[in-house]
Amino acid sequence: MALAYDNAIQRLIDAFAHLPGIGPKGAQRIAFYLLSAGDEESTNLAEAIAEARQKVRFCDICGNVCETSPCPVCADPRRDHSIICVIEEPKDVMSIERTREYHGVYHVLGGAINPMANVGPTDLNIPKLLDRLKGDEVKEIILALDPNIEGEATTTYLSRLLSPLGITVTRLASGLPVGSDLEYADEITLGRALAGRREV
Amino acid sequence: MALAYDNAIQRLIDAFAHLPGIGPKGAQRIAFYLLSAGDEESTNLAEAIAEARQKVRFCDICGNVCETSPCPVCADPRRDHSIICVIEEPKDVMSIERTREYHGVYHVLGGAINPMANVGPTDLNIPKLLDRLKGDEVKEIILALDPNIEGEATTTYLSRLLSPLGITVTRLASGLPVGSDLEYADEITLGRALAGRREV
Repeated sequence: MALAYDNAIQRLIDAFAHLPGIGPKGAQRIAFYLLSAGDEESTNLAEAIAEARQKVRFCDICGNVCETSPCPVCADPRRDHSIICVIEEPKDVMSIERTREYHGVYHVLGGAINPMANVGPTDLNIPKLLDRLKGDEVKEIILALDPNIEGEATTTYLSRLLSPLGITVTRLASGLPVGSDLEYADEITLGRALAGRREV
Repeated sequence: MALAYDNAIQRLIDAFAHLPGIGPKGAQRIAFYLLSAGDEESTNLAEAIAEARQKVRFCDICGNVCETSPCPVCADPRRDHSIICVIEEPKDVMSIERTREYHGVYHVLGGAINPMANVGPTDLNIPKLLDRLKGDEVKEIILALDPNIEGEATTTYLSRLLSPLGITVTRLASGLPVGSDLEYADEITLGRALAGRREV
């Protein structure tokens, strides 16, 4: 019985199955797609991986991924360097940039405090954040962590750490997402929306 | 505004987004995972792709993907070479092998007749199937195509093509999936299960 694939095929499937968001069936589908798609497609993917590995680095200032250090945001004199938005992952930079509402700079923690996954404050990019606060330039820190347990824990930790430094520490508003329905909002979100109500 | 990623990062995201089953968000997630996971992970993936590209080929007899031609199934003297199971894709071999009910050999068509996608009979691996029927060895052809419109069209086409050759041509039974509920079966499946009823 041929209940296992040949080595190279199985290795390819395993390599894809190891990536986040791809299960065994999806990995198999991608592997067979690549094998039948011809050389150009798979060469392009392999080269893109190799190129990214060579060229991409982390910004020495904010910890974002970039090809140059400092990254384009940190190097841009038109950005407001007195406001730092603290986020978990490099991809969060793009989410906030898309709002076109923010003109300050960023600081990427590289995760959030998560005792279940053995991630504590020492595993995050916090020392470099404290270094950036040593001058007088920074006036406000916006804590823009994910609104889940890990993000809340990290927000609480950082707000306690930063408050004594005399810098304004803010966090993103919790509330109802725009376009949603009151009926389907969960109790915690609705409770926060109530607590954070504003005069119109 | 930094509304676009640096070139190497964007190229990596685009390369993953081009794979089947991966959307833009998933591709972004995978790219950042690879960038932060360290060299070993991304080297392994790039090498697995390159290795598969070099080593994997199609079996000259059945069209399955393999590292050696003929493939292990076609080369195995313990398999029953008088029965050929015709399937659409290489991954279908593994699905049928997992049943442990089949001991014949395979023939991979490389797809199914699909006029909407401009796939006709000439685009499928049919000439090699006819070559395999030239001797007296093959007694039965099992058409195991997907039970959808394209699979049905291909089954009809092949059964008309093969019937005059004096070989038994069979197809997989349609009916209720084991473990399912009569109430939730669609009409066509239930109709086929009725038409294909057997004495107990």
